[in-house]
Amino acid sequence: IAKEVAKLLEMKAQLGGDEGKHKFVLKTPKGTRDYSPKQMAIRERVFNAIISCFKRHGAEVIDTPVFELKETLTGKYGEDSKLIYDLKDQGGELLSLRYDLTVPFARYLAMNKITNIKRYHIAKVYRRDNPAMTRGRYREFYQCDFDIAGQFDPMIPDAECLKIVHEILTDLQLGDFLIKVNDRRILDGMFAVCGVPDPKFRSICSSVDKLDKMAWEEVRSEMVAEKELSPEAADRIGDYVRLQGGLELIEQLLQDPKLSQNKQAKEGLGDMKLLFEYLTLFGITGKIRFDLSLARGLDYYTGVIYEAVLLQQERQPGEEPLGVGSVAGGGRYDGLVGMFDPKGRRVPCVGVSIGIERIFSILEQRLEASEEKIRTTETQVLVASAQKKLLEERLKLVSELWDAGIK
Amino acid sequence: IAKEVAKLLEMKAQLGGDEGKHKFVLKTPKGTRDYSPKQMAIRERVFNAIISCFKRHGAEVIDTPVFELKETLTGKYGEDSKLIYDLKDQGGELLSLRYDLTVPFARYLAMNKITNIKRYHIAKVYRRDNPAMTRGRYREFYQCDFDIAGQFDPMIPDAECLKIVHEILTDLQLGDFLIKVNDRRILDGMFAVCGVPDPKFRSICSSVDKLDKMAWEEVRSEMVAEKELSPEAADRIGDYVRLQGGLELIEQLLQDPKLSQNKQAKEGLGDMKLLFEYLTLFGITGKIRFDLSLARGLDYYTGVIYEAVLLQQERQPGEEPLGVGSVAGGGRYDGLVGMFDPKGRRVPCVGVSIGIERIFSILEQRLEASEEKIRTTETQVLVASAQKKLLEERLKLVSELWDAGIK
Repeated sequence: IAKEVAKLLEMKAQLGGDEGKHKFVLKTPKGTRDYSPKQMAIRERVFNAIISCFKRHGAEVIDTPVFELKETLTGKYGEDSKLIYDLKDQGGELLSLRYDLTVPFARYLAMNKITNIKRYHIAKVYRRDNPAMTRGRYREFYQCDFDIAGQFDPMIPDAECLKIVHEILTDLQLGDFLIKVNDRRILDGMFAVCGVPDPKFRSICSSVDKLDKMAWEEVRSEMVAEKELSPEAADRIGDYVRLQGGLELIEQLLQDPKLSQNKQAKEGLGDMKLLFEYLTLFGITGKIRFDLSLARGLDYYTGVIYEAVLLQQERQPGEEPLGVGSVAGGGRYDGLVGMFDPKGRRVPCVGVSIGIERIFSILEQRLEASEEKIRTTETQVLVASAQKKLLEERLKLVSELWDAGIK
Repeated sequence: IAKEVAKLLEMKAQLGGDEGKHKFVLKTPKGTRDYSPKQMAIRERVFNAIISCFKRHGAEVIDTPVFELKETLTGKYGEDSKLIYDLKDQGGELLSLRYDLTVPFARYLAMNKITNIKRYHIAKVYRRDNPAMTRGRYREFYQCDFDIAGQFDPMIPDAECLKIVHEILTDLQLGDFLIKVNDRRILDGMFAVCGVPDPKFRSICSSVDKLDKMAWEEVRSEMVAEKELSPEAADRIGDYVRLQGGLELIEQLLQDPKLSQNKQAKEGLGDMKLLFEYLTLFGITGKIRFDLSLARGLDYYTGVIYEAVLLQQERQPGEEPLGVGSVAGGGRYDGLVGMFDPKGRRVPCVGVSIGIERIFSILEQRLEASEEKIRTTETQVLVASAQKKLLEERLKLVSELWDAGIK
């Protein structure tokens, strides 16, 4: 009897297992989504606009694996490192999903001893962030990166990157936008003259970076309470980070009694002036603003940094244009390749990353509103017959059409 | 003193940490590689050929996340499941990298209640296999999948999939190729009449699948020693799996006293005959061979299966053409979508997957041998000046050219 019971229990377990198969949750992982044929059609349009701009600027294209050795990513992202997806240790190497395309690019340059390249790379990256998918924030999302590596006249490649952002956002017709520009050297100089101790620079920089989402009072209290900065230093920072403008602000800060005495800030401001001169030649200063509150979260930037935001469309007259989120960002990272090179040889780099998920969201909503029909196939001919019998003839015919390249 | 020593040790640890940064191995993870601009140019060519064929056949395109819930992949791949990459449990869901594009497609159909679609999907998949990169075997590799889901007249979509493989391999000019075809129902019928016990079907099927890499004697001893099949049953299988041919072999097996008595085998052979009739109408039977040794590793196939191999180019006259590896494979999987549907509703599907890494390897080698130069940029105009001074004018000029869409 015991044997029979055991057999029945085993059968029940098996049945349970089979039932379980049908019970599990049918979904994509948190923060990810499928692309339907319609969404793919929009995605193709956006990619084509971006790629044709990158190619117009003479870029080559590369690709890298979706994961890297864990140690390749270690120590590059600062506070954001906790958002990296690690793979399970299944024997062999420790791996992590790529967090951006910049660090793999620097690894690629060092590994292949390339000191001069203009390349683009369009691929998915992974961040264990809190997703807000209605606003286009995902854990798996595309980045479209354009970077210039190599020694050039100062600010020429930097200006080209900004020109590219301007061209793409204009081309995609997403409405009004603004490109904020700053420089890590100006930020560091500012921290120094405000009395921030050296080791706190990166950490205070992360706090400043939150100014686009948080009010100054909140950021100030984070600096003072969590990061133990003196209230006086915080207030001095507060005076600077509220400044924004164009060439006139750069001139004004070059005369600033404290900043002008700081070597780093002076260099940064000098280059910023040069940059604005080039941008004037390109005729795009109208949408570019020097903004001392722009900090960018990532650790590896060493010079110019920038971020493009789309401005809210419908607003009351007189109301300030409100940013609805960053769609592009980037900057100069002259030290990153050297971190990978066995001899520490540096390759100066500057680049920009277009984040297309928010752009998708906007175009998707617009398309739904307009009721425009998107074609998801390119079929040209339908072969049909009134009678069931002609199957053989129909098959021969479609075969001939296919072979002639007709869809 | 103790305090000073601790301080010194801490300093040493810090220095050690900095040195360590430069010492680590500069490489991509095992079984993966970067694509250089030249390799990307080849990749683009191959993709364009494949995509234009898929579109010619009226397919839409979709995309899915690179990882799925672990349970989505569980129980779909049989013995190969051990090769799945799992992500580390960092709190939240248990995730795995996708192993193919077929299971995510089935999940997509069930989740969106789609019962009828012709779609393609080109993306990377991940298998913790032993890489052999010189022969184009990687752990991260592309699959180009085309699938037809829905209820159609028997063997019409199946024939279209084979037509597609034929078109693509012809178009890419990779030399001679052969498409082997079989049917899981014929295999199962054959196992039954050879005396294989029901629960051993899938496991013996996996052994048969190794016949393209191992001699019959080795496979036979795996069946008998490891999988405890009777030597007589193994020998009977041996007689069948050495058979290959065309319509005449199908007719012969339909007359086979044992097979013709088995319901499954009879159904499979009947459909195989119909398939060959359609392939004759398409005019492509010259490169297609019914091969009873073809088994395919994956668990989910339920009907027709096929695999395309490239044949070795240089061979002695009279020598048998030798396969240099599979470049495409697929089949019918009528039960997979039902495994995801809460009510078990089935959606019949058939599809094909083109593996392009081997195709890349061949085209890359051929390109190197031919010394043909591949362009990796599309630059049309170089703006230069004899003097250093004209920077401003040059910048204005390139800006005008960019804005006019000139590269």
